[in-house]
Amino acid sequence: MSEVSWQEIDGILKRSHQAFLSYQKVTGKDKASFLEAIAKEIENIGDSLIRTAMEETNLPEARLAGERGRTCNQLRQFAALVMDGSWVEARIDTAIPDRAPLPKPDLRKMMVPLGPVVVFGASNFPFAYSTAGVDTASALAAGCPVVLKAHPAHPRTSDLVADAIVKAAGRTGMPADVFIHVHAAGFETGKALVQHPLTKAVGFTGSFSGGKALYDYATQRPDPIPVFSEMGSINPVFILPGSMQARSEKVAEMYAASITQSVGQFCTNPGLLLSMENNHLDEFKRQLADKMKKVAPATMLHPGIAGNYLKNRQHALAQKGVTLLAESTDMPGQNQAMATLATVKAADFISNPALAEEVFGPYSLLVTASNITELKAAAEKIPGQLTTTIIGEEEELIKYADFIHLVTAKAGRVIINGVPTGVEVCPSMHHGGPFPATTDSRFTSVGTDAIKRFVRPVSFQNFPQALLPVELRNENAYGIWRLLNNSWTRDKVS
Amino acid sequence: MSEVSWQEIDGILKRSHQAFLSYQKVTGKDKASFLEAIAKEIENIGDSLIRTAMEETNLPEARLAGERGRTCNQLRQFAALVMDGSWVEARIDTAIPDRAPLPKPDLRKMMVPLGPVVVFGASNFPFAYSTAGVDTASALAAGCPVVLKAHPAHPRTSDLVADAIVKAAGRTGMPADVFIHVHAAGFETGKALVQHPLTKAVGFTGSFSGGKALYDYATQRPDPIPVFSEMGSINPVFILPGSMQARSEKVAEMYAASITQSVGQFCTNPGLLLSMENNHLDEFKRQLADKMKKVAPATMLHPGIAGNYLKNRQHALAQKGVTLLAESTDMPGQNQAMATLATVKAADFISNPALAEEVFGPYSLLVTASNITELKAAAEKIPGQLTTTIIGEEEELIKYADFIHLVTAKAGRVIINGVPTGVEVCPSMHHGGPFPATTDSRFTSVGTDAIKRFVRPVSFQNFPQALLPVELRNENAYGIWRLLNNSWTRDKVS
Repeated sequence: MSEVSWQEIDGILKRSHQAFLSYQKVTGKDKASFLEAIAKEIENIGDSLIRTAMEETNLPEARLAGERGRTCNQLRQFAALVMDGSWVEARIDTAIPDRAPLPKPDLRKMMVPLGPVVVFGASNFPFAYSTAGVDTASALAAGCPVVLKAHPAHPRTSDLVADAIVKAAGRTGMPADVFIHVHAAGFETGKALVQHPLTKAVGFTGSFSGGKALYDYATQRPDPIPVFSEMGSINPVFILPGSMQARSEKVAEMYAASITQSVGQFCTNPGLLLSMENNHLDEFKRQLADKMKKVAPATMLHPGIAGNYLKNRQHALAQKGVTLLAESTDMPGQNQAMATLATVKAADFISNPALAEEVFGPYSLLVTASNITELKAAAEKIPGQLTTTIIGEEEELIKYADFIHLVTAKAGRVIINGVPTGVEVCPSMHHGGPFPATTDSRFTSVGTDAIKRFVRPVSFQNFPQALLPVELRNENAYGIWRLLNNSWTRDKVS
Repeated sequence: MSEVSWQEIDGILKRSHQAFLSYQKVTGKDKASFLEAIAKEIENIGDSLIRTAMEETNLPEARLAGERGRTCNQLRQFAALVMDGSWVEARIDTAIPDRAPLPKPDLRKMMVPLGPVVVFGASNFPFAYSTAGVDTASALAAGCPVVLKAHPAHPRTSDLVADAIVKAAGRTGMPADVFIHVHAAGFETGKALVQHPLTKAVGFTGSFSGGKALYDYATQRPDPIPVFSEMGSINPVFILPGSMQARSEKVAEMYAASITQSVGQFCTNPGLLLSMENNHLDEFKRQLADKMKKVAPATMLHPGIAGNYLKNRQHALAQKGVTLLAESTDMPGQNQAMATLATVKAADFISNPALAEEVFGPYSLLVTASNITELKAAAEKIPGQLTTTIIGEEEELIKYADFIHLVTAKAGRVIINGVPTGVEVCPSMHHGGPFPATTDSRFTSVGTDAIKRFVRPVSFQNFPQALLPVELRNENAYGIWRLLNNSWTRDKVS
């Protein structure tokens, strides 16, 4: 795979912009057919898609089959969203011609698509955050064409899915080039795609260094554009003493599984556990350590990620005060990662920012504080996160309500008595958090609200009915929810 | 006025952050009382507020009285918004414990405030975009404390309004420092306020150079924050031939008034008129020129703005192919601006980007194209705008529907047969547009949706009822609209 020349990139974005001129006018119903057709075409590929992805990512069959299901489900959720149509946030304020001192004009507002969106496939989710993943699905749902840069770790998987999208576009009469697939090995192509004047927004899931670089390119353009980089997280879990007493074994079991699920290659992987000294802490440590030892080493997505895991794990274990508590008993093979649990006192954690850095893989650090004051001080040191979790018994949770409120400031999603891994796809999901978890905490990259990243509002003042978008006309032909003169209704304007 | 030291700024943001820790928990009802009290206290200042603003801005009494009314109206609209409570975009997806293969957790999401917001007062709106203007009102409504940097052109006006806010805060039991007023002459203080780690967002209305500099500071912080800079616009107006035939005199009258209203010191001032050659164009030119000549020169906001007007007008008039059509017949006095109308052929406009730059003041450039193709080419050269306007007869508008769609891509608000000046404050208003009109086309700085700039969503997973924000609890105590299992309702969760 070689880099793509600037001429080629220029041609790609010009084609994408041409596609936008027609695609922005496609109705919700037709976009829904397109998205449904993509899901269907992906399913039609059958087993060969799963086999190809297994070869390229080392992920097991069941996980990949599940991820394919989720990907098709996401596409169908966006199809339902645009079919319903209410997502455009229509607002109508009708004219008051005889208002004093000045007449009030007729004003109507709704969301319109931004233009071509560049999406970067992610290495750790070959389906759900890649070629036809949520960035692509939400951009297409919004009315934006997509230029997709395949992740170089799974090019053949990406080709299969890209073909499915192109086939679906053809079958449902979408404009040519509504989806363009680009392969490139290095960073230069990505940079050029983000810097091209016709690119209007960017979606990325991956490392901090990659996501932050794209953000910098985009904000330093002559005309800055939004970049939605989701850059990982250590997803702190606070385990309150009552739960250690009441159910340490169960918590240990739940977390040994969560830390090592998919070889720890989830952006919501719990890389940091925090607790306070208590009579049951040693027992919990032993239980969690025992379970981590029993987890077999497993092959990571690609050699680069496996190499980084060994390096970052070593770096973390070498920090002052850090003790190794457990690692997989079995020896790891090539490109395999051993499950790892380490521990450190809160005082050392507080004074060393390196301990709040992500070790991407099946690694977790247990921080022990002497009391709630020290736990709070440790929590304050944690930068922005996708998630944070609190494990506690019912009365205890109420007692620590202020603390829970404090850690909510750090994250986009707060979980009580669960694990951060497993990101439900639904309207209430927020997958995004304060920097450096993402570059824009105000938007989600999972769930139907992800569509909001690729649109902007436009007000139409004093428009004749025939020139208004259908969504804003009096008749309300789609029967969508609209804020009409300050009241929510699906009625027409009478 | 001197610069504020870094120590002082650090102290200010620390106090603001402290205020946030309590203010974020204040209920919508109590925030509404606060906002209402601000409006009341501003009204209580009485005539001395208008007199002070007249002295500092040279704006006439009627205009300032109107702007004060609008400012209080804005505050009351935000009060009503947070009193109602539905603005938090609550979404609830209840648990499905027996779902296969995995149980579905209970997930609930709503908007929470970002933290301390730095707001820069604007020179051209001493009330509506300044101390208690829409940035302040929307941030306070969202639950964010405000650090307000007064515009140095009207410090005493700002002091009076700041006192009203502080009095209202005290009277309604708001935390100390929920609003902090800062005076400073130069740019260094603004830069430091934006760069302070505890600042979480920025609101600005003013020049391109100022707004873009703040954007650059904010996006180049170690942890970037959102900046909402509204940086002005030339607000192109396309006058179709039919209207020139049917009502040239009326259009000329409407536009002579709009171009020169408040000495052209509106961000929605129509600085660019575009038309096609037709039999009535010369007549329209003559009519508009006659009316512009009759407009008396008037005093601008401050000597700096008056000096820039003369300089920028001269620069524009000196461009290739530009002809002066009319200027105020009366001689301008000190710091006064003469109304100015110039014209240029579309070919010259297309080849010279300088002609699409704003001349802040009562100036407009009439561009004449030979046909619709050339008009389109001229439209393509116009950068992002707050507004664009089309003047046309009914059948003609339908005929040019594609053209109207094309220019919609350039702006945040599109007006048919009206003037861009006069920005209605209502939910359907979008005051914002593609760069360089603003730094973020996805958000408005007028109307209740302006609150969305200062919040982010948080998901609460598997929370006990008592720990959830009131807005997300089953009972729906505030009776707000919520998306409950994919349906909009004000019902409680049963």
